[in-house]
Amino acid sequence: MNKRVAIIGAGPSGLAQLRAFQSAAEKGAEVPEIVCFEKQSNWGGLWNYTWRTGLDQYGEPVHGSMYRYLWSNGPKEGLEFADYSFEEHFGKQIASYPPRAVLFDYIEGRVKKAGVRDMIRFETAVRWVQKSDAGFDVTVCDLPNDRTYTESFDHVIVASGHFSTPNVPQFDGFESFKGRVLHAHDFRDAMEFSGKDVLIVGTSYSAEDIGSQLWKYGTKTITVSHRTAEMGYDWPDNWQEVPLLTKVDGNTAHFKDGTTKDIDAVILCTGYKHHFPYMPDDLRLQTANRLASADLYKGVAYVPQPDLFYLGMQDQWFTFNMFDAQAWYVRDVIMGHIAIPDLVARQADVADRVAREDAGEDDYDAIWYQGDYIKELIADTDYPSFDVEGACQAFKEWKGHKKKDIMTFRNNAYKSVITGTMAPIHHTPWKDALDDSLEVYLQN
Amino acid sequence: MNKRVAIIGAGPSGLAQLRAFQSAAEKGAEVPEIVCFEKQSNWGGLWNYTWRTGLDQYGEPVHGSMYRYLWSNGPKEGLEFADYSFEEHFGKQIASYPPRAVLFDYIEGRVKKAGVRDMIRFETAVRWVQKSDAGFDVTVCDLPNDRTYTESFDHVIVASGHFSTPNVPQFDGFESFKGRVLHAHDFRDAMEFSGKDVLIVGTSYSAEDIGSQLWKYGTKTITVSHRTAEMGYDWPDNWQEVPLLTKVDGNTAHFKDGTTKDIDAVILCTGYKHHFPYMPDDLRLQTANRLASADLYKGVAYVPQPDLFYLGMQDQWFTFNMFDAQAWYVRDVIMGHIAIPDLVARQADVADRVAREDAGEDDYDAIWYQGDYIKELIADTDYPSFDVEGACQAFKEWKGHKKKDIMTFRNNAYKSVITGTMAPIHHTPWKDALDDSLEVYLQN
Ligand SMILES: Cc1cc2nc3c(=O)[nH]c(=O)nc-3n(C[C@H](O)[C@H](O)[C@H](O)COP(=O)(O)OP(=O)(O)OC[C@H]3O[C@@H](n4cnc5c(N)ncnc54)[C@H](O)[C@@H]3O)c2cc1C
Ligand SMILES: Cc1cc2nc3c(=O)[nH]c(=O)nc-3n(C[C@H](O)[C@H](O)[C@H](O)COP(=O)(O)OP(=O)(O)OC[C@H]3O[C@@H](n4cnc5c(N)ncnc54)[C@H](O)[C@@H]3O)c2cc1C
Ligand SMILES: NC(=O)c1ccc[n+]([C@@H]2O[C@H](COP(=O)([O-])OP(=O)(O)OC[C@H]3O[C@@H](n4cnc5c(N)ncnc54)[C@H](OP(=O)(O)O)[C@@H]3O)[C@@H](O)[C@H]2O)c1
Ligand SMILES: NC(=O)c1ccc[n+]([C@@H]2O[C@H](COP(=O)([O-])OP(=O)(O)OC[C@H]3O[C@@H](n4cnc5c(N)ncnc54)[C@H](OP(=O)(O)O)[C@@H]3O)[C@@H](O)[C@H]2O)c1
Repeated sequence: MNKRVAIIGAGPSGLAQLRAFQSAAEKGAEVPEIVCFEKQSNWGGLWNYTWRTGLDQYGEPVHGSMYRYLWSNGPKEGLEFADYSFEEHFGKQIASYPPRAVLFDYIEGRVKKAGVRDMIRFETAVRWVQKSDAGFDVTVCDLPNDRTYTESFDHVIVASGHFSTPNVPQFDGFESFKGRVLHAHDFRDAMEFSGKDVLIVGTSYSAEDIGSQLWKYGTKTITVSHRTAEMGYDWPDNWQEVPLLTKVDGNTAHFKDGTTKDIDAVILCTGYKHHFPYMPDDLRLQTANRLASADLYKGVAYVPQPDLFYLGMQDQWFTFNMFDAQAWYVRDVIMGHIAIPDLVARQADVADRVAREDAGEDDYDAIWYQGDYIKELIADTDYPSFDVEGACQAFKEWKGHKKKDIMTFRNNAYKSVITGTMAPIHHTPWKDALDDSLEVYLQN
Repeated sequence: MNKRVAIIGAGPSGLAQLRAFQSAAEKGAEVPEIVCFEKQSNWGGLWNYTWRTGLDQYGEPVHGSMYRYLWSNGPKEGLEFADYSFEEHFGKQIASYPPRAVLFDYIEGRVKKAGVRDMIRFETAVRWVQKSDAGFDVTVCDLPNDRTYTESFDHVIVASGHFSTPNVPQFDGFESFKGRVLHAHDFRDAMEFSGKDVLIVGTSYSAEDIGSQLWKYGTKTITVSHRTAEMGYDWPDNWQEVPLLTKVDGNTAHFKDGTTKDIDAVILCTGYKHHFPYMPDDLRLQTANRLASADLYKGVAYVPQPDLFYLGMQDQWFTFNMFDAQAWYVRDVIMGHIAIPDLVARQADVADRVAREDAGEDDYDAIWYQGDYIKELIADTDYPSFDVEGACQAFKEWKGHKKKDIMTFRNNAYKSVITGTMAPIHHTPWKDALDDSLEVYLQN
């Protein structure tokens, strides 16, 4: 087989794709030539922490949206690789909400073992992709050498993530606000805000987690403004939820109910955009951040052009294990083991997924919906099957724990659905664990 | 004449180009069809202030590097348009160091009068340019509609600026520094730092001016770290100059001479990069930030491909009037009034400019060198000739005023080289003028 496959991005999704092909090769299959283009100097995607914000050393948009002291916001039992358990990696079972450095180490462990690093061209940004007669022309920039070049591929697999390009709404008065306005994407360290009055806009995971960090690291007050509904957790005393911001005036924020609050900074936790500036119209995915992505057959093959694939473009309850399920599936399509049906069938597949998602009533339905999607994909490949129901169950318990106490939920432990062992309770409650290093976390 | 010309950017340089063609049309010449692509929603380039940092509402890198309370750092007498004086625009002579909003108004005044706005496609980012048999294919994205399209042109004029893509060096310990690290490009409001100890890296205009703002708006201490040499002005008491930063450790900055300073924030005033991510290797200018740019015949025509032009790519003593001189020259090349010589002659032209710049000994030589360059260009076109020597003289006085007192130099006034009138002394010393609005500035 002398097909050539380009993968864009070496985050968890792109790495899953590299591991999927390597796993087939290991079993004796002849696999295509793979080239993975990664603009950062290391793998891990969002998990590769950077102090940089805005543009990087090469003038490229900084990919990283993670910040210091970030711990997993869901239990690790919901994302464990089915072919590489936490116990295999760390030599023991570890607590359920690892900080970023610990998960980075885990992600890296699998691909180090697989030996796929050579397939990645680091510090190489994809600039432009175009359909050619034979497949795709991919133009990239070798950043350290400031040199562009174009290569041809039979398939392109987009794995560049969708939590890096911030959605940044404007509110009246921002242009003259006498304080700092930033998006969650540029948030790096809660200690920059200690002693300050901070306004957060948005009510989803970034709002909840950045607010919690601020509380943990000494911010004076946290005010969270919602467009749709309050988060409704039982927040600490210096935390309040307020209606949508209408404007800022000097240092005063005004809300829809007429109330006001004097603030030092605004953190916009207003989500991200699917953004593929290197893609022309006929190849560019345009979708909302939802479970049933627009235009992706089986959630991966681009409906109008099914030689092109997108990984991990769904909103995410499941992450690493879902990317694996997708990557193994895409691999088998490319290697000819799975056939893609005609356009009408592809469109019907998407319509059906959208309808099923829309029929769900709450977060629990959403979790099971995405669990079912994973089961559907892994049924068609040799990805090790695992107890997806069990993972859904861990998510359900997690939601219960958050409801009970939003500042202690990370002190709980769950059972691995890969190895069946119970995680230990972490040695220090999350709110007192100010050191988020790997060494300290693993002292269990 | 049915040539088509693309201009990339509607900052001062791109607007100069529009005005140059309009001025020819006004005099009865038949001019090419002009399309100017501008990614922002308004014209003015860097002078179009935005509170945004990082990525904008469409996920594009924010172009703006200007900040609140920025006043011109050179006398307006050094940049006045020869075809549109400050007196024509404001109906009177105004003081010599206008704040940003005043200069924006002035830039806009000329192009409003010229009626060229219709030629600009706003919120349209250039994504990729390619040489075709006939000329150039320019691929752009209509940002609000998220739609890409390609059009063909005989000429491309790049006027996208070179003070927007930050040069961001890394220093040891940044990844764990317990405070904020930002580049000057993302600096917006000095008041965010009031009461703080701030470290600035770099010793050029951004360092000098951001440091001065911090002093004016209540920063506790300002420490400026140099790689090459001190700025050496007579700084206020809470200001010190130190050798190069070697590392940060916790909140402590360490310098090359072994001294340390505890700091709350680092502002990297380390300059900018020429960055044209939409250009393939054969069309991309690669140059240092200097007076004699690499690879530009007469400072404008791209040597290997002289149907392609770059405006304003030099380091800048002169700005608006130099862009004008270049734009009129480029116009006359495109309209066939000026011939471009062969490759050998083009290369010799560049080599000669480099040698002459290198022979200069100090800033004064540099100012006259750039003044001579302007004279050279305007001699070949109908751009109104003006007293370039006089403008050089204003720069010379300006440097003297800075040396005498860096915190009062903006209180001086100079004589217009266009209208011959003397500027009034501003009604309020710069350090006491906290309101930088146009209305307040014009109360003379
Ligand atoms: C703040 C935050 C916290 C999160 N926390 C968790 C958590 O606790 N648990 C969890 O399971 N998930 C979490 N997530 C979800 C996260 O999306 C996934 O864990 C995972 O990182 C997605 O992997 P990916 O490979 O699809 O994308 P990414 O991790 O975003 O990786 C994409 C890669 O593509 C590269 N790339 C982008 N553009 C180009 C280009 N033009 N050329 C070349 N390379 C390019 C990037 O550099 C990057 O390496 C979090 C997300 C955010 C934003
Ligand atoms: C902080 C700061 C302060 C300064 N202060 C002064 C001063 O006091 N006096 C002075 O004379 N000069 C000053 N300058 C110098 C400044 O460079 C010039 O005044 C002037 O703005 C340069 O004009 P330009 O048109 O070449 O570039 P810019 O003003 O940078 O304009 C370039 C335009 O191109 C657009 N663009 C970029 N990329 C794309 C794309 N891919 N597609 C479409 N459009 C694109 C941008 O949106 C922008 O509108 C300052 C510069 C900085 C950084
Ligand atoms: N490990 C961690 O702890 C951690 C931390 C942060 C983020 N994450 C991950 O990061 C991903 C992204 O999460 P996210 O919270 O950034 O994005 P998100 O889930 O897409 O949420 C976006 C939020 O912004 C609000 N919003 C959007 N536009 C708005 C506007 N114009 N005005 C007011 N509000 C607006 C939305 O409000 P409506 O509800 O009104 O639409 C919503 O609350 C998730 O996968 C999450 O798990 C993880
Ligand atoms: N209106 C205003 O008041 C105003 C304000 C700000 C800027 N501006 C304009 O903006 C433009 C850009 O000015 P600028 O000051 O940003 O850039 P600049 O003139 O290019 O200066 C860059 C500075 O960064 C230093 N530097 C670069 N890399 C470094 C590294 N790795 N370590 C340490 N130092 C490093 C350089 O030091 P070396 O000397 O050692 O090389 C130099 O001092 C100019 O046109 C200026 O006029 C105007």
